[in-house]
Amino acid sequence: MNILVINAGSSSVKYQLYDMENAIVLAKGRVERIGMDTAILMHEPANKPEFHKVDEILEHTTAIRRVLDVLVHPEHGVLSAISQIDAVGHRVVHGGESFKSSVLVTDEVKKEIRRLFDLAPLHNPAHMLGISAVEANMPGVPQAVVFDTAFHQTMPAKAYLYPVPMALYRKHKVRRYGFHGTSHKYVSERAAAFLGRPLERLKLITCHIGNGASCAAVWGGQSVDTSMGMTPLEGLMMGTRSGDLDPAIVPYVMGKEDLTIGEVSSMLNKHSGLQAISGISSDMREIVEAVEAGDKNAILAFEMYTYRLRKYIGAYAAAMNGVDAIVFTAGVGENSAPLRKAVCEGLSFLGVDFDEGANGLGRGIEKRITKLGSKVEALVIPTNEEWVIAQDTYSLLQEQPD
Amino acid sequence: MNILVINAGSSSVKYQLYDMENAIVLAKGRVERIGMDTAILMHEPANKPEFHKVDEILEHTTAIRRVLDVLVHPEHGVLSAISQIDAVGHRVVHGGESFKSSVLVTDEVKKEIRRLFDLAPLHNPAHMLGISAVEANMPGVPQAVVFDTAFHQTMPAKAYLYPVPMALYRKHKVRRYGFHGTSHKYVSERAAAFLGRPLERLKLITCHIGNGASCAAVWGGQSVDTSMGMTPLEGLMMGTRSGDLDPAIVPYVMGKEDLTIGEVSSMLNKHSGLQAISGISSDMREIVEAVEAGDKNAILAFEMYTYRLRKYIGAYAAAMNGVDAIVFTAGVGENSAPLRKAVCEGLSFLGVDFDEGANGLGRGIEKRITKLGSKVEALVIPTNEEWVIAQDTYSLLQEQPD
Repeated sequence: MNILVINAGSSSVKYQLYDMENAIVLAKGRVERIGMDTAILMHEPANKPEFHKVDEILEHTTAIRRVLDVLVHPEHGVLSAISQIDAVGHRVVHGGESFKSSVLVTDEVKKEIRRLFDLAPLHNPAHMLGISAVEANMPGVPQAVVFDTAFHQTMPAKAYLYPVPMALYRKHKVRRYGFHGTSHKYVSERAAAFLGRPLERLKLITCHIGNGASCAAVWGGQSVDTSMGMTPLEGLMMGTRSGDLDPAIVPYVMGKEDLTIGEVSSMLNKHSGLQAISGISSDMREIVEAVEAGDKNAILAFEMYTYRLRKYIGAYAAAMNGVDAIVFTAGVGENSAPLRKAVCEGLSFLGVDFDEGANGLGRGIEKRITKLGSKVEALVIPTNEEWVIAQDTYSLLQEQPD
Repeated sequence: MNILVINAGSSSVKYQLYDMENAIVLAKGRVERIGMDTAILMHEPANKPEFHKVDEILEHTTAIRRVLDVLVHPEHGVLSAISQIDAVGHRVVHGGESFKSSVLVTDEVKKEIRRLFDLAPLHNPAHMLGISAVEANMPGVPQAVVFDTAFHQTMPAKAYLYPVPMALYRKHKVRRYGFHGTSHKYVSERAAAFLGRPLERLKLITCHIGNGASCAAVWGGQSVDTSMGMTPLEGLMMGTRSGDLDPAIVPYVMGKEDLTIGEVSSMLNKHSGLQAISGISSDMREIVEAVEAGDKNAILAFEMYTYRLRKYIGAYAAAMNGVDAIVFTAGVGENSAPLRKAVCEGLSFLGVDFDEGANGLGRGIEKRITKLGSKVEALVIPTNEEWVIAQDTYSLLQEQPD
């Protein structure tokens, strides 16, 4: 069975085609700059050379059409017919309180995703464009949706409610949802397998540290708390997002600088974080280079970033009254040995016996970065959200009555 | 030497008169409803009956005059002449970055406190009224100012900066200041004395939990982090303040409910916290009563409140890579055994071996609430901010050249 995974953004579509039985990626790629006459398709078929094509692609239906075309292209393709794609799985950022797990797309599901536009105005409308574009190009092919929020729906009320008037929850759905759920779930399961211990008995703190970043407290396989909140702005310091702030700073700065709601949101989401403090970059690799060159602002940015992450790990250990393992994943978490070192070396009080040698070795592999006998273990587990989406889609199809 | 301690609010003045050599309170009391013809003076002289008087008091100079009058009153007074007051110490909420310790009042100091009005618009102007009122009534008597923020000025940049554009720090002084510093400092010193260990070697987490509430990480006697931020809104859930929130909630709610900057600030400061979740009260005593009666909203409010406090303790243990003792103080921290139980019982992973028996015994005294041999100790230390203000004022006078 072949499953196509789609992550549709407002001006981009990423895709990955899986052969499920053999658990291999047949092809992956992306379309960028949708809406422009210089849109670009970047296609990476397995065992064939990469293929790039610049073209006018004005909306998502055409983008999906081009993806399907290249997947069956005689030279660059990996399938002989589109009918060889058995199902499509979509990443959807916001499932609100409606979706506690992945589901097959129905009219009711589409209606509900639309109802949630308000909570994820930048993401959910784009995902809907992706779903409609697949429908238009592949009528009758089953589609599934996998939500970034679903894994965190197990949080208890004490973790998901904010101490603000309850009317805001009832009327406007103001609560913590959390994001990166697909990743937190995947690395939790992989961590348990790696440790050879049952997930049901583990207290894990999973740190998904990419350009966006979040931590989760995962107890017995269930998310009990996570750092991103109603939106992906809360929590850890990120590449360009502030993370946690005195909420009073928002109205204060709006008043001082005469900013609109949109402007202050843009400042906190796009012009804060590592970028704002370092003045150099939102990319941890460039920050680390500048730290090594002795740049003071980069050092400060790196210290704030790792300090704030370390505090979240302490907070989640307290949330669960203990922790068995800390898991690092995503771009920065998987690849930045200096980040992991800075975080773990300050956690010896928890029983983290950091192994600097192991930390520096090997990329893209699951590994332990604490010493043998460390009371609390620290692991690096590469995440794979696309594979989870493909698997969830596959499972949903198997569950269908014939 | 007698020192008068003044805490001037916008419509109130609290006072406490100390005999420094004997470390005793000669009298204390307060004036409330300043600005009204039904203002009230409540005076509690030591060893004499309480005295209340309703009167027209239209501004602070008159309020201070009435306080001085009652202090030398033949029947209700404790002094024979106002000249027996050697100095006056004022509580000032915001010292910004200008004041790292208490200082004697000079023209320059007054100018600086005025410059900080912007950062504490509700508090600093009222304190200035208090200082001017004392000047008018007691010309030539030395005055000192003791700042809520000063103790936290030792925080490193990684703790006091927010991950927002640096221009906000440079132009508008947006940073973490922290509050309740006088209390955090006092209970840290008392905790070291109680434990019989040098403060310089201790990692303490001090929890000042009153109607306003904050935690501090105190390492070697210095504040290295604290939960209140640029304003007293950030951090822990409080009686009517939200504490930490996804900052994106502020613009979201402003848009949804068409709120002004002032309205959203008022909502988060005055209509959130325990009050908003319980729907019952902002007072922990009433919440605990309702919890015992099985009220669901009260239970939720209590859980959120203690859960958030517990997470801060975990975060600050991570900030210092360990903790020797956790200290509870202020109205709720000193008096609510159920609060301390809920917090400490979830911290056994840190090595807190909670002693429920000790927790329930004795009010208003310094005590240990962990068992003998507990790796991390938990203490109750009643705070005494007025005494610190009197002592600081006393010390500043001693340091003066003759």
